[in-house]
Amino acid sequence: MGTLDGNRSLPGQRTMIDLYTWKTPNGRKVSVLLEELDLRYTVHPVDISAGAQHQAAFRAISPNGKIPAIVDTEGPNGRPHSVFESGAILIYLAEKAGSPLWPSDPVERSTTLQWLMFQMGGVGPMLGQAFHFRHAAPEPVPYAQKRYDAEARRLLSVMDTRLADTDYLAGGDYTIADIATYPWIAPHERLGLDLDEWPNVARWFDEISERPAVKRGMQVPV
Amino acid sequence: MGTLDGNRSLPGQRTMIDLYTWKTPNGRKVSVLLEELDLRYTVHPVDISAGAQHQAAFRAISPNGKIPAIVDTEGPNGRPHSVFESGAILIYLAEKAGSPLWPSDPVERSTTLQWLMFQMGGVGPMLGQAFHFRHAAPEPVPYAQKRYDAEARRLLSVMDTRLADTDYLAGGDYTIADIATYPWIAPHERLGLDLDEWPNVARWFDEISERPAVKRGMQVPV
Repeated sequence: MGTLDGNRSLPGQRTMIDLYTWKTPNGRKVSVLLEELDLRYTVHPVDISAGAQHQAAFRAISPNGKIPAIVDTEGPNGRPHSVFESGAILIYLAEKAGSPLWPSDPVERSTTLQWLMFQMGGVGPMLGQAFHFRHAAPEPVPYAQKRYDAEARRLLSVMDTRLADTDYLAGGDYTIADIATYPWIAPHERLGLDLDEWPNVARWFDEISERPAVKRGMQVPV
Repeated sequence: MGTLDGNRSLPGQRTMIDLYTWKTPNGRKVSVLLEELDLRYTVHPVDISAGAQHQAAFRAISPNGKIPAIVDTEGPNGRPHSVFESGAILIYLAEKAGSPLWPSDPVERSTTLQWLMFQMGGVGPMLGQAFHFRHAAPEPVPYAQKRYDAEARRLLSVMDTRLADTDYLAGGDYTIADIATYPWIAPHERLGLDLDEWPNVARWFDEISERPAVKRGMQVPV
């Protein structure tokens, strides 16, 4: 974790990123990317189980009252810049770092954006609902559990078909589309999803799991 | 509708956009933007009530099997380029047109992206679930209907708080963040949402409703 480790900054890089996050897939997207980019960052845990996301100071940078959010102390024009919504944070940070995780080629960038949006609009919200009806709802709701389990399985199948043709979601290279999606697949067992049913997803998942930056980022916040 | 109207192209603009869409909020985002940009486009209706989205030819351009999708016959390097996921399509088209609807200033662009992601990850999926449990589910599911109605109301309140401070979601100017969100607010009555409860949203909604391009785009496909 990059909190106080001055040696982890890019050469000449003065930026410090303040990361407001918690132990959720959306939070881990950003800590994984920060580790991949080797950017300096300070972790500010926002304990959503205690309602910390509702505090006015947090909502000033995250108007939807959700983690993650960041403040770049050296944003555009050298001024602080806050970003909410994990997908927007990934693009902001990767673009700032000039990283190939957000490709500069127009076709590759568009393809990365398409699969990032697939995660933002599909994988995240729908696996989130599946998780809710399996583990959080105070009463059994069979119709809803079946609905979101089926949608989760359908989305895994879309990924599996894609990953039969390409190494990563956006094509031949690992990108922020993979970084956005991986933390949602990580709790697959708790969602009743056996990756053996989707062998291309399993291969992709296992490979990404071995990345040192992913291992570090998935432990944030401690 | 721009189907066969050659006069609607930008000066010197040879692009023809093939739009695969249906009469849904996500589909209307793209037709509204195409009308705002005054780009030439051909509408290909994909009747999702008849399962047309499952056809192999459609899935080749939209691997998630959902509308909308586009093919730009003159994409990067002059080659055809397909785009799925409505949020990715909005960015692709507005960037191609060099439109201020996708601002070039880094702070304004980041803010637009944040509110676009808020729509993609929140407003769309959650109002979609609210709609399902009000109108499509084959049985009453009181817990789920209450859950998604409450989330829809919460999201409207987030918008209302924002729009108390700014004319549009991303700030002082109308952007693709508004274009993405408007078609999801348009069916508010069918979602049991009375905009009188959110006066800033109502003001925003009424103003956008008067835009001629919005009126045209909301009628696509006929």
